[in-house]
Amino acid sequence: MEFEARVLDISAGGRRIVLLSNEAASSLGIHSSDRVQINHKGRRMIAIVNVAGSFPSNQIGLYREIVHELNIKPGEKVDVEYASLPESLRFVRKKIMGERLEEEEIKAIVKDVVEHHLSDAEIAAFLTAMHIRGASMDEIAALSKAMVETGKTINFKRKPILDKHSIGGIPGDKTTILVTPIVAAAGFVIPKTSSRAVTSPAGTADRVECLCPVNLSIEEIIDVVGKTNGCMVWGGALELAPADDIFIQVEYSLGIDPMLLPSIISKKKAMGSTHLVVDIPTGRGAKVKTIGEAHLLAEDFIELGKTLGIQVQCAITFGEQPLGYAVGPALEAREALETIMGGGAKDLRDKATELAGILFGMMGLKDGKHHAEHILKSGKAERKLREIIEAQGGNPKIKPEDIEVGEKSAEVYSNEAGRVLWINNQHIAQITPEAGAPKDKGAGVKLRVKLGDRVKKGDTLFEIYAERSTKLKAALTLAEKLHPIGVGKKWDEQMLIETVPAKTYHPKIFAIER
Amino acid sequence: MEFEARVLDISAGGRRIVLLSNEAASSLGIHSSDRVQINHKGRRMIAIVNVAGSFPSNQIGLYREIVHELNIKPGEKVDVEYASLPESLRFVRKKIMGERLEEEEIKAIVKDVVEHHLSDAEIAAFLTAMHIRGASMDEIAALSKAMVETGKTINFKRKPILDKHSIGGIPGDKTTILVTPIVAAAGFVIPKTSSRAVTSPAGTADRVECLCPVNLSIEEIIDVVGKTNGCMVWGGALELAPADDIFIQVEYSLGIDPMLLPSIISKKKAMGSTHLVVDIPTGRGAKVKTIGEAHLLAEDFIELGKTLGIQVQCAITFGEQPLGYAVGPALEAREALETIMGGGAKDLRDKATELAGILFGMMGLKDGKHHAEHILKSGKAERKLREIIEAQGGNPKIKPEDIEVGEKSAEVYSNEAGRVLWINNQHIAQITPEAGAPKDKGAGVKLRVKLGDRVKKGDTLFEIYAERSTKLKAALTLAEKLHPIGVGKKWDEQMLIETVPAKTYHPKIFAIER
Repeated sequence: MEFEARVLDISAGGRRIVLLSNEAASSLGIHSSDRVQINHKGRRMIAIVNVAGSFPSNQIGLYREIVHELNIKPGEKVDVEYASLPESLRFVRKKIMGERLEEEEIKAIVKDVVEHHLSDAEIAAFLTAMHIRGASMDEIAALSKAMVETGKTINFKRKPILDKHSIGGIPGDKTTILVTPIVAAAGFVIPKTSSRAVTSPAGTADRVECLCPVNLSIEEIIDVVGKTNGCMVWGGALELAPADDIFIQVEYSLGIDPMLLPSIISKKKAMGSTHLVVDIPTGRGAKVKTIGEAHLLAEDFIELGKTLGIQVQCAITFGEQPLGYAVGPALEAREALETIMGGGAKDLRDKATELAGILFGMMGLKDGKHHAEHILKSGKAERKLREIIEAQGGNPKIKPEDIEVGEKSAEVYSNEAGRVLWINNQHIAQITPEAGAPKDKGAGVKLRVKLGDRVKKGDTLFEIYAERSTKLKAALTLAEKLHPIGVGKKWDEQMLIETVPAKTYHPKIFAIER
Repeated sequence: MEFEARVLDISAGGRRIVLLSNEAASSLGIHSSDRVQINHKGRRMIAIVNVAGSFPSNQIGLYREIVHELNIKPGEKVDVEYASLPESLRFVRKKIMGERLEEEEIKAIVKDVVEHHLSDAEIAAFLTAMHIRGASMDEIAALSKAMVETGKTINFKRKPILDKHSIGGIPGDKTTILVTPIVAAAGFVIPKTSSRAVTSPAGTADRVECLCPVNLSIEEIIDVVGKTNGCMVWGGALELAPADDIFIQVEYSLGIDPMLLPSIISKKKAMGSTHLVVDIPTGRGAKVKTIGEAHLLAEDFIELGKTLGIQVQCAITFGEQPLGYAVGPALEAREALETIMGGGAKDLRDKATELAGILFGMMGLKDGKHHAEHILKSGKAERKLREIIEAQGGNPKIKPEDIEVGEKSAEVYSNEAGRVLWINNQHIAQITPEAGAPKDKGAGVKLRVKLGDRVKKGDTLFEIYAERSTKLKAALTLAEKLHPIGVGKKWDEQMLIETVPAKTYHPKIFAIER
């Protein structure tokens, strides 16, 4: 059937969607979420139909994506015909029914995700089925490979390529800013890509951006790594494993993350990684709650790495409180810089040298942690960090106090005397965005105490920083409501944790950080 | 934040979606699938954000739905703020995690589905989770109630209200056209609403439309039922249980139907039904494959009915071949009319009198089937059908040959001699749309043989009817490929059914009929 092209001067966010009236749809024998094939001057394309109530029945509405690809002018005639559902939908259904998927079937799904042949609803169904049914290691490996193959890859023409990844969940985790220069200073190649915050207070890319630009092209990355052995860049625009970006967008509001393993490993594979240390923060307030769970996840990472030719070791780390004292892009960048210069936070220093040490061990060095500590103490790590900052276009002479933090601040005091019994990661993570982070880079939370510290009544527990007083006030109000730091008697004097009413709710906050 | 309204002169199919640029979204701290609240002249509304790549950052794109509801003029300033995710999403997540939902939680989900506060992806995740996790009877009852409460209801001010429903899956099932007049002729009220075909060759509304108009308003339905005791109308535009229409739209391409029970029962409840017979066609080519499954489903229907105050009885019927000989709207309407006039198909007559008989039994009549047969034979049922046709605006004197069937036709012959061993429902259901049904009302398939019939080589197995020769050709090609009717030796002479290769595919066709 022929339709007049109505060019909608907006994009559908990459999706291939066309609009048809009820009448047109029924003439073609299709309804919403069916597909049509559009033929125009020898080119053809499959698109998903949205049936729009009051649309002219002789027109087809085309978003910018399709107009560009088929080079259609407004008012031109285009030929539209019914197209059957993509074959990959059959494999989505198969997964819903609980069957295992073959490698070829997974490839077909990932390809259709990247090419926008599957709708958000269909992708959501696939992710939900993956979450509930689980996936075998073969399926996870096939997913990882398919996600690599459908995106760009970087070839540094050197080996080995080292990398470090945290599964996230701990506010203030700025370890990358220390691990990267320590490893690069030892002469190893470590091209680190990071994410920006989605639902967390700061992503590593947000933190590093307080030190130097992070939005580099693939050519620029190759250049920086060539000069310094390392980089710390934003991976989001590099089109490495782009299927993952689509998965995240769909699953975000659902609070599920069945693609954790293939997502991480595919991005590393696309960067050419050969050796990887994965940090699994573990504890009540972390994504992984118990050592047992952490072990299972670690085994999966190691096995998956093997399948894709990446040597993986995992570090199970203490995840029951924020790392260091600072949470929020600028505060964290400042703390990382202070720590690499010899001051800063003890737990951050310990974690960074442990992780770097594991990578050194994989390179055959004995007593890797000691080696990492030496590089840190000697000032080599700091010099390397400044080299990387300069290569990425930042100021290599940057001092911690040059990093501007929010001018507005307020302190939260303890109402009790005792010990710090808990610091709620999720609550700290909620207060920081309320103060404006990550958009307001200077916004955040600075802890004055950590677990086990002795506190007097009236002592400051933490400070909130913001760039605007309205934001400061909002964050303060939330902080008073959430009560993120608990001070009290030691547990052996006070046994009751919580009373459970007849009806319970679990308003779980879910953070995707990659 | 303030944005300039850009009025998009198209609808989003009822969805409440706004478009924002990447920059605007990040300023608001939101990303795709997050929600915003739009404030305009004292009115407010929650909408889901689609982040559109190349959209002006000072504008917000508004589809017709929102423009109308908030009465926004192009270029006006509207205030937009971040809105947290709807609470019902928390309950969707809970179901994904495998937990049972409370009545209030289900109500919140259904309300947000109907009010378009949940995206298609979120609804797809809910339906997938419902399919995989299953639902308790309490959950199904809560869903049914919530689906009734969020739509319109009809009050006939009379009781009892009888009804009949088939779970579908059998091509050619025109039983309703006989059951309705038989029951109404006996003096009982039976206001029958039916669906149009979605993925099947014909819905009952498509069949009835060959006899009289079916697109009646609620007032017209009350009037027709007042005059005749019965009606046979299209339920799709009456806004009875509208959540179900949204569920169907989302789940259609996924091939799942977790809402079967609440969907059927909620539509009946909205019509005020007090007594219902549910037809469960059972057999290899039907939705329900075994008697055991049919029993379980029947028990669920009966229990669910009790909870909602509807007396339910179920009929497990033979579902291994099409009902009667005709498949396709006009062919079926003609066969139904012939059958009610005394000719027609024996199995159709038997099934219709059995189902009507069950309803009579529920009304306290002894030997209900006999009673139904009597009404049919005496001509009372035919007279009642003609009354209903007239009341709905059709020609009461209509003769079978007045119903136009496709002018183009072709016959398919048997290559073998023997008995008809199988008739594949799904294949017949696929050939009919290829011939143009249900849009081309005259298109369809007419069987010349049924199961067990003796066939000589060269005998006609079935005819295909179409309104256009291209369609006829397409249907014929498919028919030759699918080979929908099997003729051969009796099973005791020929044991092998199929060989299973190492790799198997199940290209299952899925039909939603309500």
